[in-house]
Amino acid sequence: MSVLVVGSIALDTIETPFGEVREVLGGSASYFSLAASQFTDVKIVAVVGDDFPEENIGLFKSKGMELKGIQKASGKTFRWHGRYGYDLGGPQTLGTYLNVFESFDPVIPEEYSNAEYVFLANIDPELQLNVLNQVKKPKLVACDTMNYWIEKKPKELMEVIKNVDLLIINDAEARELAQEPMIIKASRNILEMGPEALIVKRGEYGALMFSKEGIFWAPSYPLEAVVDPTGAGDTFAGGFMGSLANGDSNGSAGLKKAVTYGCVIASFTVEDFGVKRIAHLQYKEIETRFTAFLKLSRLD
Amino acid sequence: MSVLVVGSIALDTIETPFGEVREVLGGSASYFSLAASQFTDVKIVAVVGDDFPEENIGLFKSKGMELKGIQKASGKTFRWHGRYGYDLGGPQTLGTYLNVFESFDPVIPEEYSNAEYVFLANIDPELQLNVLNQVKKPKLVACDTMNYWIEKKPKELMEVIKNVDLLIINDAEARELAQEPMIIKASRNILEMGPEALIVKRGEYGALMFSKEGIFWAPSYPLEAVVDPTGAGDTFAGGFMGSLANGDSNGSAGLKKAVTYGCVIASFTVEDFGVKRIAHLQYKEIETRFTAFLKLSRLD
Repeated sequence: MSVLVVGSIALDTIETPFGEVREVLGGSASYFSLAASQFTDVKIVAVVGDDFPEENIGLFKSKGMELKGIQKASGKTFRWHGRYGYDLGGPQTLGTYLNVFESFDPVIPEEYSNAEYVFLANIDPELQLNVLNQVKKPKLVACDTMNYWIEKKPKELMEVIKNVDLLIINDAEARELAQEPMIIKASRNILEMGPEALIVKRGEYGALMFSKEGIFWAPSYPLEAVVDPTGAGDTFAGGFMGSLANGDSNGSAGLKKAVTYGCVIASFTVEDFGVKRIAHLQYKEIETRFTAFLKLSRLD
Repeated sequence: MSVLVVGSIALDTIETPFGEVREVLGGSASYFSLAASQFTDVKIVAVVGDDFPEENIGLFKSKGMELKGIQKASGKTFRWHGRYGYDLGGPQTLGTYLNVFESFDPVIPEEYSNAEYVFLANIDPELQLNVLNQVKKPKLVACDTMNYWIEKKPKELMEVIKNVDLLIINDAEARELAQEPMIIKASRNILEMGPEALIVKRGEYGALMFSKEGIFWAPSYPLEAVVDPTGAGDTFAGGFMGSLANGDSNGSAGLKKAVTYGCVIASFTVEDFGVKRIAHLQYKEIETRFTAFLKLSRLD
């Protein structure tokens, strides 16, 4: 089954103590799609400016993505400029230039409207609600958000959360959303807001999934070298949704497997700048690392 | 088989945003022993002052610990005063009063000298070397250390590390010791210093074990409430060594199981102030949580 993603496409300038890249392909929809397309067909809804490099479209096409939902607006593509310190933790944002993304109004092409798996990447919750109104009975809808929307549009965000099956956020966002420092209590509060399950991304420490059935912890493979954390969260979501859409179960076992695939894909993402690593990732590399992940935390 | 620990016994004053305790039982040897005694016999070598409350000795005795190696020196017992912020991360030390601990010279009683399992808690590496010279062919020696000794006595510390089987430190210490930010490379550097295995404690994110046989990750159970992190690392070590001494294997499987027991015990420690929780912990509670730990990261 196919996955529909609505999110951003950007040109990122990324600085780390280990190097720098300028105006490379970025944005939540780009990272998500490159990850999800390892597992299944992906339909993208996003906006780019008239300066968007054709080679990026070529990359998407080479992965078999459906691009009809990518609007081309007159103006410049969304740009982001960030800098990471030696801890490679949360980056310092040196510039956010929304450009054509500022007036993004996601229109779901008719033939996408019965997509079975829908991911609402981190965009304005009002737009996320618009998308929810345009899709027909998906099997599973997941969404992401960020501190900005938790603070600026709490009412709209709560409406989104009430209407999705699954929320995928990081631990700081979970704490802020629930107004509760302890992650277990925070997750319980969030599950009461509506979703069936909550996935809390914890960077190099893996991810936790909370649901009525309990807690699942997927570790993150300790890496030789982390080069650039940009896109880890979005590729986690892409691997997760792709694995679900490709699998035969949305039950507990399918969800756990999907969380593990999410961690595996994210672990590749951070090994090089931008989408460099995942753009050329072979599926067999994913399977090899998946097996290593399973071994990592097995007692026997 | 029995475990010998050489470390500190202290009276701690601990402040957190959730409360405060004054002059309660603390110190690495106390925490370690209370954890290890859940699994096996424990022999303590430490020093207390003549003001050390008899009730604490009573607590040790009630756990069947061998106390002949606790020296009673004239003067005051070691005191530590720390304060945690809302993140319950590394505490701010408000006062360290070494008192009788300043001139601690560990003497291993003759009948302890053939202990099979030896833990050198975080003390001056010169004293750790003294202990190594007093014990006869233990099956396994593990040691802890801290940033202070890495910086002040690197030569002596390297001599200790070369002569122990296992090093148990936290991730910041591993990075500092190896002078390498990436934990995988850091661990490789440290294994080259001599020990068979390295365990890196990562607080609420569990623990990693590195050895020639690969990497093992034990998760830390996400807790309802963390009240006071003091002693988590020492009880991890106590649970680890106790489980090893009580088990039938020092091979890969035995070590992994021991790391998991270490995480289990540490998860209890932080649920209340000081030793309050682990002083009254029932072994069956440990087994129940151990089972929950195994389930936490299982896909099936």
